[in-house]
Amino acid sequence: MASPGLCIIAGSGALPLQVAASARAQGRSVFIAALKGFARPEDFQDYDLEVFGIAQLGALTRAMKARAMTEACLIGGVVRPALADIKPDLALLKHLPSLASAFGKGDDGLLSGVVRILEAEGLVIRSVQDIAPEIVGTGRVAHGRRHPDEESRAAIDIGMRVLAALSPFDIGQAAVIVDGRPVAVEGAEGTDAMLARVVAMREQGRLPAGSGGVLVKAPKSGQDMRVDVPTIGPTTIRGANAAGLRGIAIPSGKVLIAQHDATIALADELGLFIEVLS
Amino acid sequence: MASPGLCIIAGSGALPLQVAASARAQGRSVFIAALKGFARPEDFQDYDLEVFGIAQLGALTRAMKARAMTEACLIGGVVRPALADIKPDLALLKHLPSLASAFGKGDDGLLSGVVRILEAEGLVIRSVQDIAPEIVGTGRVAHGRRHPDEESRAAIDIGMRVLAALSPFDIGQAAVIVDGRPVAVEGAEGTDAMLARVVAMREQGRLPAGSGGVLVKAPKSGQDMRVDVPTIGPTTIRGANAAGLRGIAIPSGKVLIAQHDATIALADELGLFIEVLS
Repeated sequence: MASPGLCIIAGSGALPLQVAASARAQGRSVFIAALKGFARPEDFQDYDLEVFGIAQLGALTRAMKARAMTEACLIGGVVRPALADIKPDLALLKHLPSLASAFGKGDDGLLSGVVRILEAEGLVIRSVQDIAPEIVGTGRVAHGRRHPDEESRAAIDIGMRVLAALSPFDIGQAAVIVDGRPVAVEGAEGTDAMLARVVAMREQGRLPAGSGGVLVKAPKSGQDMRVDVPTIGPTTIRGANAAGLRGIAIPSGKVLIAQHDATIALADELGLFIEVLS
Repeated sequence: MASPGLCIIAGSGALPLQVAASARAQGRSVFIAALKGFARPEDFQDYDLEVFGIAQLGALTRAMKARAMTEACLIGGVVRPALADIKPDLALLKHLPSLASAFGKGDDGLLSGVVRILEAEGLVIRSVQDIAPEIVGTGRVAHGRRHPDEESRAAIDIGMRVLAALSPFDIGQAAVIVDGRPVAVEGAEGTDAMLARVVAMREQGRLPAGSGGVLVKAPKSGQDMRVDVPTIGPTTIRGANAAGLRGIAIPSGKVLIAQHDATIALADELGLFIEVLS
């Protein structure tokens, strides 16, 4: 029996293409549902692709049914849309009460609400870890040549405790620890903006100039790993390097490493560690 | 008996002058130890004043002894100095081991270390609340005409829980809650920079445009209230307004309201509440 087809509901960034390539390498037929304003259709020239507005769930499920597909994977960046920018189609409209309720619960609730709606339409939503486990950082393999020294290990421990403390809240799960102290905590601004802030604080003298410190990144506890999985990639490595950090720590099996080989090579080149905590 | 004299070790901002005026109104003689690079000597034209480098503790204690003063109050902003910028005098040098240890513990530890050193030199360090209780926000009086509605009260509750979760860590104690979710948490960047970030996130579409949300600000649990007391003032009000927030919440007796009357008047004018939680 042929592997079932897979619809990749693609946001921004390099991950959707990676997941598509991984699924195709497994012998699956792949259909790209490119989210308008986020995915770049030109990245997928070799693929069956249609563009959908963020709220065109009816058109999306119809397109999947036309391809006899029932499995989908949401991957890539989507900035939370303004309510006024959402143009719901009929299929979405009937779910609007549950979506409106999801909206009140923040990004996580919103995306989980979308997953529930797609499931109610008869689809099976798979996590990236299911489809392409090789791009999830795990403790089973080394990710790069560098490793944290004792000082960095102590900073990682503090950072993980900060993230654990914030875990009950719907908030970006990353922090920067410098000199044993959390100097930046990610909110809705995203990891890149948080790292840029560390650069600015070094320049302003709010932090010691020079290098030292770590970035820790982890999902919230209980996070639905089918939506909004935390990700690091070359931009994260460059940002951490600019911020004078020694490296990045992530828990095993819970954070995607986008462009895995390029990311690891860049970390090695810049002298940063990527530590996967088991 | 005349009231004992008071040395105000003055950093930046409007608070040192307020505290000086308050102490003088109580009949105390006041000596301003203006910290070089932070306090503006021209703000204190009417006062006995000398300028000291951040690490000239020996010169400072001599100047106080020459005035027969034993009480001092640290007030105003001081950006954590780079180690290389500190030019310790002899009195500081003998305390250098304890100061170096304090440095490793972050801002809070650093300032507490300075307090301990001044105490070891025979000084009594008083909190702003002792000297000028009228500039600390308390639940005993209303601070402005606006009050939070039910939605804002729920946001305040979430915000206070976020700050409580972060309280064990040496980190700025402020957060912004929008739509029931913490969208910004203060690290070493300061409250004003965090509020500017909320403005930027609204513009970028990471947060709903328009208004809604609250700023909560509180000291860490166990914070030495003689150093680094959290403060709000007109800049905070303007920043919260620009960020589209409905108001600010602080716990009673633990946050200074700089330029109290001007701050309250500005909040009233812009339609923001200042809620003091008992």
